[in-house]
Amino acid sequence: MVTIRDVAKLANISVATVSRVLNAHPSISDKTRQAVLAAVEELGYYPNANAQALATQSSDTIGVVVTDVTDSFFAILVKAVDQVASAHQRNILIGIGYHNPEKEKQAIDLLLKKRCNALVVHSKALSDEILNEYLQRHPGMVIINRTIPGFEQRCIALDNEKGTYLATNTLINHGHKYIGYIGSNHQINDEIERKSGYLKALSDHDLPIMPHAIANSSPDYQGGEETMIKLLSYNSNLTAVVCYNDSMAAGALSILNENNIKVPQQFSLIGFDDMPLANYLVPKLTTIRYPIDLMATYAAELALSLVNKALASPENVTFNPTLVKRFSVKAI
Amino acid sequence: MVTIRDVAKLANISVATVSRVLNAHPSISDKTRQAVLAAVEELGYYPNANAQALATQSSDTIGVVVTDVTDSFFAILVKAVDQVASAHQRNILIGIGYHNPEKEKQAIDLLLKKRCNALVVHSKALSDEILNEYLQRHPGMVIINRTIPGFEQRCIALDNEKGTYLATNTLINHGHKYIGYIGSNHQINDEIERKSGYLKALSDHDLPIMPHAIANSSPDYQGGEETMIKLLSYNSNLTAVVCYNDSMAAGALSILNENNIKVPQQFSLIGFDDMPLANYLVPKLTTIRYPIDLMATYAAELALSLVNKALASPENVTFNPTLVKRFSVKAI
Repeated sequence: MVTIRDVAKLANISVATVSRVLNAHPSISDKTRQAVLAAVEELGYYPNANAQALATQSSDTIGVVVTDVTDSFFAILVKAVDQVASAHQRNILIGIGYHNPEKEKQAIDLLLKKRCNALVVHSKALSDEILNEYLQRHPGMVIINRTIPGFEQRCIALDNEKGTYLATNTLINHGHKYIGYIGSNHQINDEIERKSGYLKALSDHDLPIMPHAIANSSPDYQGGEETMIKLLSYNSNLTAVVCYNDSMAAGALSILNENNIKVPQQFSLIGFDDMPLANYLVPKLTTIRYPIDLMATYAAELALSLVNKALASPENVTFNPTLVKRFSVKAI
Repeated sequence: MVTIRDVAKLANISVATVSRVLNAHPSISDKTRQAVLAAVEELGYYPNANAQALATQSSDTIGVVVTDVTDSFFAILVKAVDQVASAHQRNILIGIGYHNPEKEKQAIDLLLKKRCNALVVHSKALSDEILNEYLQRHPGMVIINRTIPGFEQRCIALDNEKGTYLATNTLINHGHKYIGYIGSNHQINDEIERKSGYLKALSDHDLPIMPHAIANSSPDYQGGEETMIKLLSYNSNLTAVVCYNDSMAAGALSILNENNIKVPQQFSLIGFDDMPLANYLVPKLTTIRYPIDLMATYAAELALSLVNKALASPENVTFNPTLVKRFSVKAI
């Protein structure tokens, strides 16, 4: 490993002077600067970022905690934070929580130990109390996709209920009366709110809640297959379903296909999130857009502004789910 | 920010002793250890990982460079490295290169500056010469999905030509004679080798290379749509295509669908990579499996073993593409 001492030796200049050059200290002659930079280049020396971080008690790294980077939703979140980081000459450190309270805690603790003082955290497994304590202790921490009471200004969340209300309402406006709901079996706010939006729309239109029209499973392709089979087995009159997310909608669609139930001619389907997948399905999926890219950008800018007073806070915004019309919904 | 001094003050113990406790130094009484840990807990103190890294001139962080984390291929790569890191009580730092030589270089340099001495690098935009120089200087760097001459032992790559040979051969064995190729417009090894495997299989079976049966575009869904339109416009007798990757196959499939050409009854399609997407398509896509999860796991273990002599090198393996039979290929 090449050290600053090697650079000083080659340039025939003191270590202290080399350090001043590398830290862009004023009052260094051009000649000295050139000699140091030439030695740096020749030796392939990398200034030690850990030492720089130690000196300032902070780091140039934004910490991000997500559930699983192989889920497009989180990949888009990470990419958005990375782009904000790049724009500010910073980089990111990623912790993965796998929807497990212990792993989520470990991930946050590791990023804090690494002196990430700006943090964007997606946590669903930890309690409000634990997150509340983290937020109190770490003023640069921002929570995404969840609201912790008392820290509303540092929590970026979406109105999930409004999203499924919009989805269900769309189906009702297309003449559907027998509408099912395919939900997640993770009893987190997202599921509770999304189911509630579905129920509220039915109730606002005086439509009955059918028995066995709601089924829950893992929020993925397999879970979508499983729940669609259940709904079809129980309900002969069902003409549409609202899905918890696009992956479940994709699984549901495959079951409808296998049973020769044509989408959208005989059956309408609506997703949630608007992931790239929605465009790959046949028919392309009508869905509710979850603007996770915009939300993550905002969260990262907010986190940076909280730890660096020189940066302006991003303009305060609220994020709304919107309908993306494609080809999986048809009037009955 | 709580410092070690605050811990020492609260525990009424010297800073040096607190430091020894935190670094698991022997010859510390249980009573002292308890007092320090109680103070750490009470104050919510995090040991400074930057200081620890500085002391050892290394870090507990594996660096990973990928092209774009929102591409499933790279997300799976990152997750595999993260899981190796976790198993060794390390974490990962991610650099994103966006297929741009300058950004790839920046990403690698930043990770080196952060003292990641174990590195898994996916770089397609940088030259062999530049990567050669990095590999010489940084003994813990491993290259994935590319072979740099002279550093074969530290490069984990797949035989791409074998993959498309297998794909094309499968179609020929199903009686197809007029087979097209949908390729990437990035003139990187992957494309050159994959096209070569397709040509070799045709030639080995004395099948002619049709004019305009090869089309190139961006290696994504839109590129697949674009190239499939071209191939259909030029070739009325085409009955099958080999695709550069699953995303292009998905785009091609959507065009076949829109033109009422039934897959696999009238037309066969074969992908490459075996991404989750392959399972979401209708019909589910027959494809060539690229074992990026296994390769990334191996690469991370190799990188760690190169910088830590206490760790055994992973058993030397070569990685092979394999055929995954689903429902997009049928005999003619």
